[in-house]
Amino acid sequence: MAERLGFVGLGIMGKPMARNLLQAGFPVTVHSRGRGPVEELVAEGASQGSSPADVARVTDVVITMLPDTPDVEEVLLGEGDGLRAAAAPGSLVIDMSTIDPGRARSFASALDQKGIAMLDAPVSGGERGAIEGTLSVMVGGPTDAFERALPVLRALGSNIVHVGGAGAGQVAKACNQLVVGATIEAVAEALALAERSGVDPAKVREALLGGFAASKILEVHGQRMLDRSFEPGFRVRLHRKDARIVMDAAREVGASTPSFAVVEGQLERLVDAGGGELDHAALITLLEGA
Amino acid sequence: MAERLGFVGLGIMGKPMARNLLQAGFPVTVHSRGRGPVEELVAEGASQGSSPADVARVTDVVITMLPDTPDVEEVLLGEGDGLRAAAAPGSLVIDMSTIDPGRARSFASALDQKGIAMLDAPVSGGERGAIEGTLSVMVGGPTDAFERALPVLRALGSNIVHVGGAGAGQVAKACNQLVVGATIEAVAEALALAERSGVDPAKVREALLGGFAASKILEVHGQRMLDRSFEPGFRVRLHRKDARIVMDAAREVGASTPSFAVVEGQLERLVDAGGGELDHAALITLLEGA
Repeated sequence: MAERLGFVGLGIMGKPMARNLLQAGFPVTVHSRGRGPVEELVAEGASQGSSPADVARVTDVVITMLPDTPDVEEVLLGEGDGLRAAAAPGSLVIDMSTIDPGRARSFASALDQKGIAMLDAPVSGGERGAIEGTLSVMVGGPTDAFERALPVLRALGSNIVHVGGAGAGQVAKACNQLVVGATIEAVAEALALAERSGVDPAKVREALLGGFAASKILEVHGQRMLDRSFEPGFRVRLHRKDARIVMDAAREVGASTPSFAVVEGQLERLVDAGGGELDHAALITLLEGA
Repeated sequence: MAERLGFVGLGIMGKPMARNLLQAGFPVTVHSRGRGPVEELVAEGASQGSSPADVARVTDVVITMLPDTPDVEEVLLGEGDGLRAAAAPGSLVIDMSTIDPGRARSFASALDQKGIAMLDAPVSGGERGAIEGTLSVMVGGPTDAFERALPVLRALGSNIVHVGGAGAGQVAKACNQLVVGATIEAVAEALALAERSGVDPAKVREALLGGFAASKILEVHGQRMLDRSFEPGFRVRLHRKDARIVMDAAREVGASTPSFAVVEGQLERLVDAGGGELDHAALITLLEGA
């Protein structure tokens, strides 16, 4: 019999993910701050839980998809209302939010004390990946929990990698956000240099796609830069949040990230300039007034 | 009848390129500082010229493939011995070296005064691309010269883009070296962060290849970093030279390259630390003592 699933956090990412689980045939109990998405999913067959604890009481596996580390802490460990207060020993929590790796590890050990297993399983692929069920999922935690979670994760993503123990999924996600942010900035600097030099940046993109400079970012975000099309996609504000996670994670282990430190600064500048709700390809706009 | 070709500069790149032209059936007259490569190609059917001017006297199209801007200036404009002194009006020079875009433009106009057309046509793809004839070629210059050069370039590369007027090929190459350098640095920072966090960098690379962080560099240079395999490939010393070209080109037009400035600094540090002859994937070694 399919495990009874809970889903906490029905935002831009969470809502389509919960929908994919329903459509895969899982019984799903949902909880979210916003009433709209809850009602939508209940109309599609989900049950409603009045709190994270309430969801935990009637499910075996609870997925959380929340904005930031403090939200996850509240939902997991909140006094009275949190998952930990109500989940049965032997149940599993899969946190798919992007949070600090060190905190993910502490949350896992706090749940473990009550016999609740936890996986950190942040994703990449954005809203489109969430809707289409083609997310990349980077998983940290024990192997038996990973294997138990696989049928659930397969309804959400197409590239699922068990990276290592607790926190390893968040480390991989931090690495992902580092590489994505730095590559966007590099492509932006190159296309802005071409433009300033009087050379057609579209031709430069085309030439570069044929060699070692080729990347998914040059292809997708490079095109957005040429089109001046900054509808998200992935918002600058959220990438800044993730950039802080990267820098904190690096500081914590004494890792050196000299070029990403510049990228973090650019993300901050763009938020300060009012660009927080744009797609992160908008980093190029900072270079144009140079 | 096939045009009579000249080839000046038979280094790691130039020698296999000249060989590909011979094998494509062009008559080729070669000149180079090193005697070894000249004798090798003469044994394979090339003629020998005693100076760039000497080459120009007996050919219609001369290709130059030289280490740096001053070398190109010497070969193109050198008093007495240079191509300009001897090439007939109506002949074509294709400079495939990587040099400063602004200087490429001046060389083109100096040749133009004598009725000699010039293309700047730097390449990417490295020694392997030169041997296999699969280089990416980024071309700047007049359209008629580009069309005349195409049969020649097709014997050398598989991705040939006419980027724009004089200097545009060098601008595209500068953009290429910017993106390649910055992406290598980003991948290095990410894999070093994973390692320091106790997470298997091979798993992180695997997870990241499935999403927006995917790039040719993550694939190829990421693997070199995991294997600690720093046989070049492309040497740090040469990437540092190209990084200076990028920074000069950016300064010249007032373009902002904040993240690449850090990458240039890392390349300098690595040369100073004795790593100039390693592959540029060795940028990761600077992060490991952090």
